[in-house]
Amino acid sequence: MLTPHHDGSPLHVSTQQPALGETVRVRLRVPEAFGPLAWVGTRSNPNREPRFSEASVVHSADGWRWWEAAVEVENPVHGYRWLLVGDDGRQHWLNQLGLSATETLDHDDFKLVAHEPAPDWAAGSVLYQVFPDRFARSDVAPLHRLRGRGEVPEWAIPAEWGDALDPEPPGRSAQVFGGDLDGVRERLDHLERLGVNLLYLTPVFPARSNHRYDASTFDHVDELLGGDDALVRLVEAAHRRGIRVIGDLTSNHSGDAHEWFRTAQADPSAPERSFYHFRDEAQGGGYESWLGVPSLPKFDWSSAELRRRFIEGRDSIVARYLKPPFSFDGWRIDVANMTGRLGGDDLNAEVRQAIRRTMLEVNPDTILLAESTNDAAPDFQGDAWHGAMTYAPFTRPVWSWLQEPGSDAGGGIGFALGRVPSYDGHAFHEAHVRFAAGFPWRTRLATMNALDTHDTPRFGTSARRGTVPVAFGLAVTLPGIPVVWAGDEFGLTGVDGEASRTPIPWGSETDAAVAPVLEAYASLIALRRAHPVLATGGIRWLAVSDDAIAFVRESAEERVLVFAARAAATLEVAKGAIGATDAAARRFGGARLEESDGLVHLAVDGPSFTAWRLPGVEAPAW
Amino acid sequence: MLTPHHDGSPLHVSTQQPALGETVRVRLRVPEAFGPLAWVGTRSNPNREPRFSEASVVHSADGWRWWEAAVEVENPVHGYRWLLVGDDGRQHWLNQLGLSATETLDHDDFKLVAHEPAPDWAAGSVLYQVFPDRFARSDVAPLHRLRGRGEVPEWAIPAEWGDALDPEPPGRSAQVFGGDLDGVRERLDHLERLGVNLLYLTPVFPARSNHRYDASTFDHVDELLGGDDALVRLVEAAHRRGIRVIGDLTSNHSGDAHEWFRTAQADPSAPERSFYHFRDEAQGGGYESWLGVPSLPKFDWSSAELRRRFIEGRDSIVARYLKPPFSFDGWRIDVANMTGRLGGDDLNAEVRQAIRRTMLEVNPDTILLAESTNDAAPDFQGDAWHGAMTYAPFTRPVWSWLQEPGSDAGGGIGFALGRVPSYDGHAFHEAHVRFAAGFPWRTRLATMNALDTHDTPRFGTSARRGTVPVAFGLAVTLPGIPVVWAGDEFGLTGVDGEASRTPIPWGSETDAAVAPVLEAYASLIALRRAHPVLATGGIRWLAVSDDAIAFVRESAEERVLVFAARAAATLEVAKGAIGATDAAARRFGGARLEESDGLVHLAVDGPSFTAWRLPGVEAPAW
Repeated sequence: MLTPHHDGSPLHVSTQQPALGETVRVRLRVPEAFGPLAWVGTRSNPNREPRFSEASVVHSADGWRWWEAAVEVENPVHGYRWLLVGDDGRQHWLNQLGLSATETLDHDDFKLVAHEPAPDWAAGSVLYQVFPDRFARSDVAPLHRLRGRGEVPEWAIPAEWGDALDPEPPGRSAQVFGGDLDGVRERLDHLERLGVNLLYLTPVFPARSNHRYDASTFDHVDELLGGDDALVRLVEAAHRRGIRVIGDLTSNHSGDAHEWFRTAQADPSAPERSFYHFRDEAQGGGYESWLGVPSLPKFDWSSAELRRRFIEGRDSIVARYLKPPFSFDGWRIDVANMTGRLGGDDLNAEVRQAIRRTMLEVNPDTILLAESTNDAAPDFQGDAWHGAMTYAPFTRPVWSWLQEPGSDAGGGIGFALGRVPSYDGHAFHEAHVRFAAGFPWRTRLATMNALDTHDTPRFGTSARRGTVPVAFGLAVTLPGIPVVWAGDEFGLTGVDGEASRTPIPWGSETDAAVAPVLEAYASLIALRRAHPVLATGGIRWLAVSDDAIAFVRESAEERVLVFAARAAATLEVAKGAIGATDAAARRFGGARLEESDGLVHLAVDGPSFTAWRLPGVEAPAW
Repeated sequence: MLTPHHDGSPLHVSTQQPALGETVRVRLRVPEAFGPLAWVGTRSNPNREPRFSEASVVHSADGWRWWEAAVEVENPVHGYRWLLVGDDGRQHWLNQLGLSATETLDHDDFKLVAHEPAPDWAAGSVLYQVFPDRFARSDVAPLHRLRGRGEVPEWAIPAEWGDALDPEPPGRSAQVFGGDLDGVRERLDHLERLGVNLLYLTPVFPARSNHRYDASTFDHVDELLGGDDALVRLVEAAHRRGIRVIGDLTSNHSGDAHEWFRTAQADPSAPERSFYHFRDEAQGGGYESWLGVPSLPKFDWSSAELRRRFIEGRDSIVARYLKPPFSFDGWRIDVANMTGRLGGDDLNAEVRQAIRRTMLEVNPDTILLAESTNDAAPDFQGDAWHGAMTYAPFTRPVWSWLQEPGSDAGGGIGFALGRVPSYDGHAFHEAHVRFAAGFPWRTRLATMNALDTHDTPRFGTSARRGTVPVAFGLAVTLPGIPVVWAGDEFGLTGVDGEASRTPIPWGSETDAAVAPVLEAYASLIALRRAHPVLATGGIRWLAVSDDAIAFVRESAEERVLVFAARAAATLEVAKGAIGATDAAARRFGGARLEESDGLVHLAVDGPSFTAWRLPGVEAPAW
């Protein structure tokens, strides 16, 4: 893949935070082997009418010519692509999918975004996901105290930490192991040793289930978790260690035990009635709910009062937990894809933009991630959500490439029928690039590279032998925020989202089966954090075969060359695509890197993830 | 291409006009050779959350199995795709791009649209585009009368019908040949002989140019064209012959001589001031205009008064000309792509939906076409515009395949740098399908298949030898409304949009150079109109090579097999993809169709367009 290259990274774009109306300079690298060019430049589409900007050569080095063009950011999301016209008249377009000899769609353009960006720290995050009931129980965990007083909520079925999960209702959602926020706080040592710096807590509001996605109020933290004070203690302790903390908000629905919903049901004239979609008797009565589950009534965002209480302004729920004393560093939004959408109504953009406006008002240094597990790009163009908790560009392609063929453990990840299709490396690459191409660069950097979550089976359950470090290696080296779903680093397994919520087996860290997994996770996170290029550097694909892939992340300061294989494999890369490898320094893994006959050979005898550091890319300053 | 097939046509979808909430049945045809299937069904994405619907076999015939699934239309634009799971576990997705072994984007889904559809007659139209100043001059043409009275508008430079076009300003826009609407009326015989049934007039409102895209009022028809009465006479006469008539409206801008703009400039406190984007002195003063051309000030659609006067309700301009006595059958909207878009504002959807609402109010039996010459799909999902005047799915691919290599006559069609890239048949097919895939089926049927327009060079100017009938053959057989830019049928040429506006050489119809062109156009239009399947039938691609393509349009009543070649060529198609050819009846062209060894051979010795009629597809009734 010695082909012309551009991406949204600082090597190729003069600013990561352009203003509307600003002229940004963009650069294209063309290998000399591509042949003589008669015209090179960009095609923008301001107000949906094409505009071209001619580029000129600003630099030549290592067999590459660097072309530079000036692009005025005329709309808040300003798409552009490159056009290369050869001396022979042949035209090639370059967009986020790569090179094309035929005209391309706006969808896949590179994009400059003039909206407020994510915080500086977003792309440098390594996220650790905690499901509070199952993470850790402190000495003061409320469950036992409440039990002693006979005050356990009537819906809850208390369990001991070592008890088996009950996968069937009512245990499924009602079994409560009693993890609490002080328990999380007491385990911050573990997070620090692992190297993560962003803690994501699934919901902490009172509810009638162990997952708490059916909030009964947003006004305070669940007493079962230790209440408001425990959350404040946790966030303060995490901040002292340089770990940020984000919460989880259900913007699509509440629980049917929510005070708003109870009021709305009891009194059709109450203001809260407008918060939900109650149906007329003529329409059969009842109300709209998440996928028809009556315990999760769906919000009606046409209600101004709902917006005021929940998402708009300094007194809203969104604001409340970002301000002291709670001081959350942002939110993950649940079911963001469905939020505000029903039948002929689509208020999604209004809701997400209102949430972000409120965040900017109370603390601009906060992140807004949002769940959208399929084709997320249309909602993630930079107007509100910073990054996606999505499974299409990373999670599903990685599973399809690295799971044992025939695995049925695809439920919750959004695989059709729950079956994991088998991909070779080419299909992995195709699917990854196809779903990433719709995102602006900044959205890619803040999108979650999750192998699994609390909603899915655990990746390790039926992974091909030896591929867990390969998969997590990709999570820390492909653009995006690496995610550890708590327990993965203990080698836990689980065949679906329910089974993956096993309580963490504290004390097993030094067990023979656990220690190497923990070590691999910590080393790969250390790799990520030691090399900022893995957070914000460009990405250039080098080679793909059935069993192996190779790419390089690049900045002016450094490069990291990645070779990932699911089996014994060799890849050959034109030397010109990598440059001199004498200074290549191995940082992880055991594959071989050799040069001969103008080719760089990457080879390994079995499943492996290897990364080398190389010197940065030489390019003129902006 | 003997592969599974689905499209939006009546063979495959139980209704063309589904209501929101309706359950629609959809059918997939799978050739037996595709192998045994364990699961077949659809994947919808209501409110952006996937939902699957399992299909079952309802019919088997001619080596095909027909699967049927039920899809509830949950959003006004309801996307769906097919999933085929083989007995071996392999998954294939089928969407508007075709078959994919990897997951696909929502953009390319099939779509069910619950918005109000285009009129029944839309897809059956053959459109004839007239530029009034250049089409025909009646005996009562006002130019001479005004000239005699010394009342020719001061901007106009009168010309005689046989004069040469002056390509340089001021002649370029000011040269007036004096064609008038009575002249059009007097030539309706020509339209009727040609077989067209939809007449599109470029603007008829007073302006300060021969093209009239710089309207000085929308309140009456230009006196130079004969005024309101001449328009009424023309529409009445056309309707008597079964020819509908649509006008052309500039929703993006007016002329700077427009009464609204003059008032706005003269009096900053006038209501009209809000109609345009005047800049503060601090921003440098002046006003926004189309591509910076000061004579075309851009409308500011945030103005409620502008909306009221221009597009909203029974007293608006949009309504005025759809009502008697004018009785236009619809509008073509100029620069629809840029309308309402500027910097951070995007009111495009509001404006187009308001226009359509008004049309539904005064006459629902009207069509709304809109100019959007590049990647039009995002604006053409069925909420307002029925079809696109666009060049990306048809015009540019046809030019790239059928123009002489190296042709520079690409200006005005939106080719980058005005240069026409050369495509082989594969690239033609790829580009056509890529840009068509984003449209709902109904939008494809109402989208204009134009070889050229008043803004472009004429196709015949530098076409490969013998390919004009090939190109127009594709215009009448690919889904979409065929377009004749008046003069093409006379074999006129022109190297750009200006030069293509030559006055029609009336009287040359029987010239040796003209008669066969006219005959080819009339025959191909007759082919289109004799076979309704070409208007509304499905399309299935059969084979593609560098120099030839073949596809079939299909309904229960009939099929039309199309073979188009730009040079001597042979295509082989699996017999199973076509079925028995004994009943094939040639309807146009001279290529050979032969069967042997389970293959159908299509062959020709040079550029050719050939169409055969075949019996309809056997399928159970809905």
